[in-house]
Amino acid sequence: MTEFELIQIYFQQDQSADWLSVPIGDDGAVISAESNQQIIVTDTLVEDVHFFAGTAPNAIGHKALAVNLSDLAAMGATPKWFTLNLTLPEASESWVKTFAEGLFALAKAHNIVLIGGDTTRGPLSISITAAGTVPVGTKPLTRDAAQVGGRVGLIGSLGLAAQAVSARQQGQEPTSQQAQALDFPIPQVEAGLALQGLATAACDVSDGLLADLGHIAKASKVVIELDGDRLARICPAQTQASAEATLSGGDDYALVFVMPLGQAVPNWATDIGQVKAGMAKTGMAKQPVAVLGGPEWLQQAAKNVQLAPGHQHF
Amino acid sequence: MTEFELIQIYFQQDQSADWLSVPIGDDGAVISAESNQQIIVTDTLVEDVHFFAGTAPNAIGHKALAVNLSDLAAMGATPKWFTLNLTLPEASESWVKTFAEGLFALAKAHNIVLIGGDTTRGPLSISITAAGTVPVGTKPLTRDAAQVGGRVGLIGSLGLAAQAVSARQQGQEPTSQQAQALDFPIPQVEAGLALQGLATAACDVSDGLLADLGHIAKASKVVIELDGDRLARICPAQTQASAEATLSGGDDYALVFVMPLGQAVPNWATDIGQVKAGMAKTGMAKQPVAVLGGPEWLQQAAKNVQLAPGHQHF
Repeated sequence: MTEFELIQIYFQQDQSADWLSVPIGDDGAVISAESNQQIIVTDTLVEDVHFFAGTAPNAIGHKALAVNLSDLAAMGATPKWFTLNLTLPEASESWVKTFAEGLFALAKAHNIVLIGGDTTRGPLSISITAAGTVPVGTKPLTRDAAQVGGRVGLIGSLGLAAQAVSARQQGQEPTSQQAQALDFPIPQVEAGLALQGLATAACDVSDGLLADLGHIAKASKVVIELDGDRLARICPAQTQASAEATLSGGDDYALVFVMPLGQAVPNWATDIGQVKAGMAKTGMAKQPVAVLGGPEWLQQAAKNVQLAPGHQHF
Repeated sequence: MTEFELIQIYFQQDQSADWLSVPIGDDGAVISAESNQQIIVTDTLVEDVHFFAGTAPNAIGHKALAVNLSDLAAMGATPKWFTLNLTLPEASESWVKTFAEGLFALAKAHNIVLIGGDTTRGPLSISITAAGTVPVGTKPLTRDAAQVGGRVGLIGSLGLAAQAVSARQQGQEPTSQQAQALDFPIPQVEAGLALQGLATAACDVSDGLLADLGHIAKASKVVIELDGDRLARICPAQTQASAEATLSGGDDYALVFVMPLGQAVPNWATDIGQVKAGMAKTGMAKQPVAVLGGPEWLQQAAKNVQLAPGHQHF
């Protein structure tokens, strides 16, 4: 056994399910026939790109799974299984033990089972591929199904993770709430399930609110008009910097969604705007998302964010 | 759009299937209910660990998928879909174009569809997760099902990839046959399907013949005795170095398998030994795989390989 095979043992603990006839450890895992629709998502985190060097291993383990659970949530799926590709500079048992603690704590909370993986030497990065299910006959929440006139809803907070990044980049300590949002983001799995059959379109906010609503607008060939006064109320502070973090900060893993025409955003989410017919259909260069009204500092923040290129992590 | 989102477009070409209701491009892919058993495999390739820096991008694209197809073959599965996590130092369009050519040529040949992925900045590495199917009621080929008395079979060539690595490490040009084996390994997908219902256990030879047969022996709690005279005949040259490459060289992606008691290895494969009851059951430190008889140079090679630690790539 190589040292890397030895540390793989940390990932073979107690992973079982009645639909899993061959678990992790063979050439492949074997899963029973699946009577539901399956949703497959995948995301990679790379050190110094998606998390700071020196981030606590349990936070890395948590976040690597959380970003995938967030994608499943955005499709309205029930989490089922995931695979883990872990690339490590050295086979450090203590690092892996702590990483696995963070990973499995979140996995257990969402009843998702690790069924396979690969551990190898190289610069630190983690790829996870995860599967969830949606009952046959239920439409998964996609980006291309926003209807003109539909209200736009938001679940979760925005801007805290971006504020943590910006504090750390300036050598300052983020608040504990900001650090928690960056290091241990909470995927909105239950909210995603609750949106099934209610909303038509959804997307998670990984790249920033305006960018991710832009994905919905472009895929659905509509424009989205956000209400500046409502947005101002959800900014962590009533300042332009705080508004920029709210509108463009990535890594929050909130959910945005669109209701069918004539239906209100449910009271456990925040109404932030509505869908309009728009020029996006013709492919002309127009902003797919506009912020209307609201205080001057928010308007200025929206303008800055729209002028900047897409979210690039750090 | 970031430059990385732009190059993702190379992976969104013409990927469709009647079971794929939402293809690559949303938060997740949506797959119809699956009436077969599903086999999930995953593997990572890292530059300077699994392939030399400067390897042609089409070879990297081919190999990243081939190693996963080889795992599916070892389970007796029909390839269905895969996800791609590509981490690149820079968003080079020409590199990605050539990588995608190698990847999709092999994907098309095996009718496997790219359904999702993530492209990000970082040190060059590729993780692929792939799924295949096995009909309900058919037992997938696992490592733990070798029966005492069963004959051991081999499909594919051994040692060529290891010879290519060793030539390149010494600054020499490998033969074109060796280079082909290392850079464009052929996954034994059809042979794996043909073994379904014939063999009981199987494994692909990614770590080296003795190491991978050791996986079968340990999982099945048996020992495997290989026939030295038969092994000598499949060494590329009749030398100790060639025998060491044959017994321990990884990266060949041949298949090894075990037949049920009393059944001969089919004539399109090579019989190389048989399964015996053994000490492996008691957990005592004994070699799970032995090479019996054969020429002196082969015996010496077997001894050297058994003394060395597991295959560590390069």
